[in-house]
Amino acid sequence: MSRLRRKPWTKSYLQEQKHVIFDGHRWQGKWHSYFGNEGPLHVELGMGKGTFIKEMSLRHPNINFIGIDRYDELLRIASMNAVSEETGQAPPNLALMLADVDHIEEWFAPQEVERIYLNFSDPWPKKRHIKRRLTHPERLRKYLRVLAEGGEIHMRTDSSILFEYSLNAFLEEKDFALRHISLDVHREGTPDDYIFTEYERKFVEQGLPIYRLVAQKQ
Amino acid sequence: MSRLRRKPWTKSYLQEQKHVIFDGHRWQGKWHSYFGNEGPLHVELGMGKGTFIKEMSLRHPNINFIGIDRYDELLRIASMNAVSEETGQAPPNLALMLADVDHIEEWFAPQEVERIYLNFSDPWPKKRHIKRRLTHPERLRKYLRVLAEGGEIHMRTDSSILFEYSLNAFLEEKDFALRHISLDVHREGTPDDYIFTEYERKFVEQGLPIYRLVAQKQ
Repeated sequence: MSRLRRKPWTKSYLQEQKHVIFDGHRWQGKWHSYFGNEGPLHVELGMGKGTFIKEMSLRHPNINFIGIDRYDELLRIASMNAVSEETGQAPPNLALMLADVDHIEEWFAPQEVERIYLNFSDPWPKKRHIKRRLTHPERLRKYLRVLAEGGEIHMRTDSSILFEYSLNAFLEEKDFALRHISLDVHREGTPDDYIFTEYERKFVEQGLPIYRLVAQKQ
Repeated sequence: MSRLRRKPWTKSYLQEQKHVIFDGHRWQGKWHSYFGNEGPLHVELGMGKGTFIKEMSLRHPNINFIGIDRYDELLRIASMNAVSEETGQAPPNLALMLADVDHIEEWFAPQEVERIYLNFSDPWPKKRHIKRRLTHPERLRKYLRVLAEGGEIHMRTDSSILFEYSLNAFLEEKDFALRHISLDVHREGTPDDYIFTEYERKFVEQGLPIYRLVAQKQ
């Protein structure tokens, strides 16, 4: 984060954005009202600059997307990226939220979330930082509570350390079933319509493998 | 295999070796009698030159080991390697068998095997050869039938393709529980007493990761 220059106007800018939410707990259990439709709710934890969640929201207008990050400068960039040059608006099915993952149960009611995306989360590779990993067992149990039955976590990372850790963590949670494990998402080429995150493209260009898993609540 | 020069005397040599078994089906359900004790049975499928299984049999005298390969020249090398220079004998708890994995149910009775080792099996990376992989679902079901309750498959490979395939294949079999997944066995150094296979040492020296999993019958 240190590379992002802090803008003095970030906070006031964000407060003016209709698609940026500061009071997520207010909508807990009522996200259908917020979006004004009954579409399923997909949430990205640690959206970074928001490339992925914005593109997803454009491609899937019947799904409601919420991108979450704890850094306000990232939220600002994601927010600016989300706004269309033509309309001056963000997609109606996209909301961004400044928040810490550990409070996820304050924003979402039990079983309210259909899917969680974890894209290139900070790997926290040092052992003493394991508790900070987004797939730490305590967090997995929080995700389980907000996920619908059959709901899924879709994870991608370039970190062998985080992926190995996450595989074992999911296997320990009997309420998750793992599937679609890939140790090299781009091994056989990348589909034209693939959505790269900012980080991912750099890694793929260096020939490094991208790991993926899906964990379904069962 | 083409690199191994075929010796005209391989067959007659093997037939003279007390620790080499040609009639595995004769001992089906009676391996305790063969070894003359009630120790658990550990089997390596595709033992190659037999370095691993021989070292295991020396370290674990209370476990009975059977090393299997389908190539008689490999069996010859493994057999010669297994014999101690001092005693002229192979370890009493080690037997080697010339056989094809697909016949595993002819050699072992249901639940007779406590553990199966798959070390650096041929990855058969091409899609049209998937059926030859030792973790193909049809083979996993054969392994399940000969494995005891709680019995385990311990797999190691340097092949990302085979490992990814195997993870997903095991996840599809509800009677297996995966654990102890590693995407880089030697990431944090190698214990002094680690048993390298012939292939493994080369890969590790090149800095390539070794993958590992344990699948337990449940």
